Amino acid sequence: MSEHPQSAGLYTDRYELAMAVAYWRDGRAEETAIFDYFFRKLPFGGGYAVFAGLATLLELLPRFRFDETQLAFLEKDGFPSEFLDPLRNFAFRGSIWAAPEGELVFPLEPVVRIEGGLMEAQIIETLLLNILNFQTLIATKAARCRHAAGDRHLSEFGLRRAQGMGGLWASRAACLGGFDSTSNLEAAHLYGIPAAGTMAHSYVQSHDRELDAFRSFAAAHGSATVLLLDTYDTLRSGLPNAVRVARELAERGQSLAGVRLDSGDLAYLSKRVRQQLDQAGLREVKIVASNQLDEHVIRSLLQQGAPIDIFGVGTALATGAPDGALDGVYKLAFADGQPRLKLSETLAKSTLPDRKQIARFRDADGAFVADAIHLDAESAPQLMVHPFEQDKRLDLSGYASESLLRLAMQNGRSIGPGPSLYDSANYARERLGSLPAEHKRFENPHVYKVGLSKSLAALRDEHLTRKRKEIAP
Amino acid sequence: MSEHPQSAGLYTDRYELAMAVAYWRDGRAEETAIFDYFFRKLPFGGGYAVFAGLATLLELLPRFRFDETQLAFLEKDGFPSEFLDPLRNFAFRGSIWAAPEGELVFPLEPVVRIEGGLMEAQIIETLLLNILNFQTLIATKAARCRHAAGDRHLSEFGLRRAQGMGGLWASRAACLGGFDSTSNLEAAHLYGIPAAGTMAHSYVQSHDRELDAFRSFAAAHGSATVLLLDTYDTLRSGLPNAVRVARELAERGQSLAGVRLDSGDLAYLSKRVRQQLDQAGLREVKIVASNQLDEHVIRSLLQQGAPIDIFGVGTALATGAPDGALDGVYKLAFADGQPRLKLSETLAKSTLPDRKQIARFRDADGAFVADAIHLDAESAPQLMVHPFEQDKRLDLSGYASESLLRLAMQNGRSIGPGPSLYDSANYARERLGSLPAEHKRFENPHVYKVGLSKSLAALRDEHLTRKRKEIAP
Repeated sequence: MSEHPQSAGLYTDRYELAMAVAYWRDGRAEETAIFDYFFRKLPFGGGYAVFAGLATLLELLPRFRFDETQLAFLEKDGFPSEFLDPLRNFAFRGSIWAAPEGELVFPLEPVVRIEGGLMEAQIIETLLLNILNFQTLIATKAARCRHAAGDRHLSEFGLRRAQGMGGLWASRAACLGGFDSTSNLEAAHLYGIPAAGTMAHSYVQSHDRELDAFRSFAAAHGSATVLLLDTYDTLRSGLPNAVRVARELAERGQSLAGVRLDSGDLAYLSKRVRQQLDQAGLREVKIVASNQLDEHVIRSLLQQGAPIDIFGVGTALATGAPDGALDGVYKLAFADGQPRLKLSETLAKSTLPDRKQIARFRDADGAFVADAIHLDAESAPQLMVHPFEQDKRLDLSGYASESLLRLAMQNGRSIGPGPSLYDSANYARERLGSLPAEHKRFENPHVYKVGLSKSLAALRDEHLTRKRKEIAP
Repeated sequence: MSEHPQSAGLYTDRYELAMAVAYWRDGRAEETAIFDYFFRKLPFGGGYAVFAGLATLLELLPRFRFDETQLAFLEKDGFPSEFLDPLRNFAFRGSIWAAPEGELVFPLEPVVRIEGGLMEAQIIETLLLNILNFQTLIATKAARCRHAAGDRHLSEFGLRRAQGMGGLWASRAACLGGFDSTSNLEAAHLYGIPAAGTMAHSYVQSHDRELDAFRSFAAAHGSATVLLLDTYDTLRSGLPNAVRVARELAERGQSLAGVRLDSGDLAYLSKRVRQQLDQAGLREVKIVASNQLDEHVIRSLLQQGAPIDIFGVGTALATGAPDGALDGVYKLAFADGQPRLKLSETLAKSTLPDRKQIARFRDADGAFVADAIHLDAESAPQLMVHPFEQDKRLDLSGYASESLLRLAMQNGRSIGPGPSLYDSANYARERLGSLPAEHKRFENPHVYKVGLSKSLAALRDEHLTRKRKEIAP
């Protein structure tokens, strides 16, 4: 598939344009606005999220335009004909501050800040959410698999059960989160991810004898051959036939690369297969395992001592199971010359006003201690307050800090060549290395502390109080 | 976004091409093969699945080709240069028999049968699975929402949390499964689905006063205005302001279309809002509800008597939560002049050999009774056996039958203009009307009977026995 659309203006919810037409009508299209992208809940019951999708967003934003066919459709759909010219000339000219891809991010943090005209900053909402929510979900799932797998090879096999064309970005985000290869050739082509793949049961079935299938496949692939053992019976048929073909390859100066297990008890079978391969002098032959793997199954297999070299992870990774979505939202923080916020029944669902930055604090060993969301106009705070329980405070004066949000797009233009996908994958790995272990465990991970500077908390409370008074004076 | 790729040959797992090169090398590329698409488990713990995605598959298959850039990539990725010409000239020239979109389908049934050369039929596997698994999952979820919602309006709002570009097909499949509209403008444009949308909280926040926001939106949208009530306080602020704007619209000879509730207790709030709208003489103003809806929440709301006219269903629909994937597979049934099957530890995971058809039996009232999978060479059976417990039999002699699989593509060309998306949606609704209620309930639905003709069961057993003997003679 071709990677991305040429005119992506319709990659949006209708309500974005319904608001745009009203802003334009009121002469407010160009008024300065700031929106924040953030999420409220970490996926998978985990202790962190790996931010992903920024490069895709930066690539697609310049294509967020409307061609004549699309404009004709919008007119037919009820948009006033006077509004077509503003859309025809539309291009996103705003600026974006964002955490780099691969950054570890946490609930409430404004991971991306969009500044621009009210109309342009509004109508990119759906596109931005669609890209960032999904890729962040998958990169996080991938990082969890990597955490479980240690240094074993991880291959992403999800395209066949991925959610349609979403599979392409799933492969990208999996790589960013720590996977070594993908079965998805389009992703391999576009993103430079190593492609991997073995054979299907159908290949074995298409031959009268399994041994014939293995020989034929080995003749075509030589030392790159990986044989699937379980079409008929793993230990009584697949394995002995694979050993035989491995020896035949050896006679030709080649070697069998691996065998794949795709059903049955993978812990038991991998041990039996390893033992028999070793006895046959085939210590270099790798064992690939697949079949409904996820981070929990991988961990369990390794805890049982399963001698698996390569894990193929499909559906659970490519669809971000069991969550399926990250709850990221896009909220207005500044408009009409003023900070803005949304009230809610609970403080936890209210939003944070104004232009913000995130300061990350690290201890003397470089380990992450806490993040403080603060006003962009102030420097990193020495003390932060809990976002909802303001008597809880944390003294940060002993720690070094760094700012997480960096300028990624200025006036519609991307800043410099961004990091490559592998740079971002390395960055994620580095950052995970600085996150204390208690935040990375799967069961009840320790909550990473995210707070507000006193001035940000005060600004929010002032606006909350004012809004509440307006409603019930 | 542009709907579909121009050269889709890389929309595949690497192993498809690894098998292809081996077939081609052995001179078997053109040998006749038959593959079946089927699934083993119904999604959502439900009693049926709504088949979807065929039209997308038929549209994409002719684009499953390789351009020069892709060929260069494949060569670099290790495919032999002699294999590039076969790929350069590749086009799918096979034939496809399939159930129509909107058909109700059940586990084990060969919903799609692909016949063609061994190579071409093999390498379209990933593309086919990616499309059909996802769209069938979403159409089924949509049908469940429709079942819960009765004749209320259902609008699909999922794009912002959809799995990347998968959102486009989610919108299509939602319509097929019974949704009335979508927020997704690209889907509305490409598939002719009515577009729907209201306003975001940001629109209200961007004004100093909610009332100003409502007035401005109403000035832009007149009688199409839907106002979002919960930015600050639904009952104390949003509703009174909406009533005021509704009256102002009425003075101008216009009318407020609706109000939207997006948080809080939707049952309680919708009743209070309806009551106050009615008291204000605004009986025609519709209530739209959204916020993490699915079929279960919709059912609960209606059971509580919530006067909601329009449900906006987002994440759970567009991602097919909680399943996230349908477990559809693509298995070889015929090759090298012979029926083929895969063994497995359990009979339930073995496959069915040879060219097959599905007969659906209906009673005198037209209600669906059972489906029998039979050999294509025989007519619909008078008796079927349970697929795994062969002492269980069902006499079908009293029922009329129809064949579910129809020729959809012949020698690479689609048959006729297929049904429109709305024809397929109507077909799904009709078919659901013929499915007895006990298969449609959400809790422990009655299992719809799917069996095998005696000759198909005998053929499978003969091959199973032979294969098992080969392994352990």
